[in-house]
Amino acid sequence: MKQSMMFIPTLREVPSDAEIRSHQFLLRAGFIKQVAAGVYTYLPLAKRSLHHIETIIREELNAIDGNELLMPALQPKELWDETGRWSVYGSELMRLTDRNSREFALGPTHEEVITDVVRDYLNSYKKLPLTVYQIQTKFRDEARPRFGLMRGREFIMKDAYSFHANQESLDKTYDKFVQAYTNIFNRCGLKFRMVEADSGQIGGSQSAEFMALAEVGEDTIVYSTTGSFAANIEVADLPVGAPSPDGVGVVDHAKGIEVGHVFKLGTKYSESMNAVFLDENQKKQPIIMGCYGIGVSRVMMAVIEQNNDENGMIWPKSIAPFDIHVIPVDVKKAEQLDAATKIYEDLKAVGFEVLLDDRKERAGVKFSDADLIGLPIRVTVGRGISDGLVEIKIRQTGEVFEVKVTELVSFIKEKYQELA
Amino acid sequence: MKQSMMFIPTLREVPSDAEIRSHQFLLRAGFIKQVAAGVYTYLPLAKRSLHHIETIIREELNAIDGNELLMPALQPKELWDETGRWSVYGSELMRLTDRNSREFALGPTHEEVITDVVRDYLNSYKKLPLTVYQIQTKFRDEARPRFGLMRGREFIMKDAYSFHANQESLDKTYDKFVQAYTNIFNRCGLKFRMVEADSGQIGGSQSAEFMALAEVGEDTIVYSTTGSFAANIEVADLPVGAPSPDGVGVVDHAKGIEVGHVFKLGTKYSESMNAVFLDENQKKQPIIMGCYGIGVSRVMMAVIEQNNDENGMIWPKSIAPFDIHVIPVDVKKAEQLDAATKIYEDLKAVGFEVLLDDRKERAGVKFSDADLIGLPIRVTVGRGISDGLVEIKIRQTGEVFEVKVTELVSFIKEKYQELA
Repeated sequence: MKQSMMFIPTLREVPSDAEIRSHQFLLRAGFIKQVAAGVYTYLPLAKRSLHHIETIIREELNAIDGNELLMPALQPKELWDETGRWSVYGSELMRLTDRNSREFALGPTHEEVITDVVRDYLNSYKKLPLTVYQIQTKFRDEARPRFGLMRGREFIMKDAYSFHANQESLDKTYDKFVQAYTNIFNRCGLKFRMVEADSGQIGGSQSAEFMALAEVGEDTIVYSTTGSFAANIEVADLPVGAPSPDGVGVVDHAKGIEVGHVFKLGTKYSESMNAVFLDENQKKQPIIMGCYGIGVSRVMMAVIEQNNDENGMIWPKSIAPFDIHVIPVDVKKAEQLDAATKIYEDLKAVGFEVLLDDRKERAGVKFSDADLIGLPIRVTVGRGISDGLVEIKIRQTGEVFEVKVTELVSFIKEKYQELA
Repeated sequence: MKQSMMFIPTLREVPSDAEIRSHQFLLRAGFIKQVAAGVYTYLPLAKRSLHHIETIIREELNAIDGNELLMPALQPKELWDETGRWSVYGSELMRLTDRNSREFALGPTHEEVITDVVRDYLNSYKKLPLTVYQIQTKFRDEARPRFGLMRGREFIMKDAYSFHANQESLDKTYDKFVQAYTNIFNRCGLKFRMVEADSGQIGGSQSAEFMALAEVGEDTIVYSTTGSFAANIEVADLPVGAPSPDGVGVVDHAKGIEVGHVFKLGTKYSESMNAVFLDENQKKQPIIMGCYGIGVSRVMMAVIEQNNDENGMIWPKSIAPFDIHVIPVDVKKAEQLDAATKIYEDLKAVGFEVLLDDRKERAGVKFSDADLIGLPIRVTVGRGISDGLVEIKIRQTGEVFEVKVTELVSFIKEKYQELA
């Protein structure tokens, strides 16, 4: 896409209300704009990155037989009364009343709705198991929204629900989700750790959290320095230097950002909502459930928090808004603009996503914007073009290469392969 | 995907509360499920079709330099006070109060939010024009929600906004949108007509509606039988048989479902919200705006309303949930299941989206479900497989062919090309 036609409102100064780097860069690089406390607009660059994250999630969940659907944000009070959560959920639940005085919640989670959607149909063991998921906007009236997309009041989540005739089936699907989540976070370029977790307000028996490792994380992970033990501090409140509970190594602490959560819900919701099936002996049983969440917008933020330097973001190639930034240094020079435009078209033709900075801006502005946005590969078209040469810079390593235009596409293909 | 793992809750009976065919089939074929009046869950088949519609919209809008972004549903009252719409919008605007007693609207449209998002940045004629769009869930507290997705209270819309330094630039972008919309609705397989329209609550100078032609439509189109004149009856309340205002033919009436709307807004929002830019003479001017909507979920419903028979839906190939339905008649016969599974894999390998009905159901149930869902091509694997033969049925024409398994893929490729 041509940058002159794109909405990328970059900022020179660090916004005073942004405390952590990922939040600062999201604002400075023109990725998000605040509409109200904890409520943001995702601007075009952010939307492109989110689109890549969502595609990765869809691919991995479709591979484990996930059915994508889309439930509404508006949830009738009656459904929340069935589980009793209307009264216990507290002030984090956003509530409203329609023109006929009917009460609704704005969904922070969808256990009630999905159980209602499937309960008539899943009436026999023959129709189980079933896995459904959605990527959707969620609402939670946080007391202290902060850190941009880390703790917002309106945010994008992938939530999934599974339904089973027996515990073994749930265990199997739960394990598949653990693997799918591992794939998803690896593909997004995230450094993370899976930890034992508390199941909180959702309820249920077993659960684990996926924690993106980051100093600014709000959660504390307790883990073994050399063993496999890892838990949320709410589950295992062990001091640093105690021996590890798995008998290997000693306990250490780290900070993490929760990006995923998997739960074995059991029959908490199916019992209260009368979601039952007939088993092989024609006996009524409550459906056994699992639920599985990923904070989609939070994943984007965590990746930025883990991948940046003083100049800006450093995108992993899998979820970068574009693969390549092509920059004609001076667009008033026809030679530079023409060559850059041809390179842009050539790179698009072989499948790359390319941003062409065709703006009439000073070179310094263009370069600092490019560093801020942090696309994996930058192609600079300057004076060297008279000799058929352009400069290529790899954002992740800082390496710079002078390359012949005639060899540009094959050179970039090779370099792109090597990138994280 | 394997049908045994999919959530497709088909119904035998016509639901008593569904008056029109598209609504009946959406319910009967397991595409949607009501959660509250005018509030629906889009089940997996509907989600797949919506995904195709959304992809077509993205392709056509990106081609006219549209920037996709995503604005929040929660909109602060303060923004709506700036334009005065908080008090004039009435009871269709869903409102809520957060834990700190701040008031919000749930967005039925986003003129206020987008004007706020861009007003700081678009401060110079050099940054204009700009076109942004989003595909997002909208909320409108309809007094009488009805006809399923036709008039709902929570629905999917594509809304777009454009910003200009002068009227000529707006005119140019408006014309581009008219062409993009024409492409989008044609690609979705919709029979439609563009008509002159009233600009309603949004305000503005010139506007046109895109009407899907359907007897059950809630809007009346007044058009010339042989000329080019066409308008919404609110704009030109002419009786049938009057001469047409364009001097060609006579007036007739038709019913339509509004699926798209394009507006020249002018400076209504930029003036009230102080969104100004410096022109070439360094003079402050209000930004000139356009806005452009498509009812995404309504497009899906309109396509079904136009394409069905007594047995169910008849999908155009561009937005069908899957391209091909492969049906082994009796999955207990290994020969049939194995052959069907191989056909399923072969067709997927060449790029088709395929649904394999591997359920242990009677043939009659499978065939009536297949007709109901209405995928473009059906492959039936029955006894003929012993002789290497399968049956192919084209849903749109009813044609049936007996084809050798060895020639199946090339035969289907050819037939698929010919389909609408």
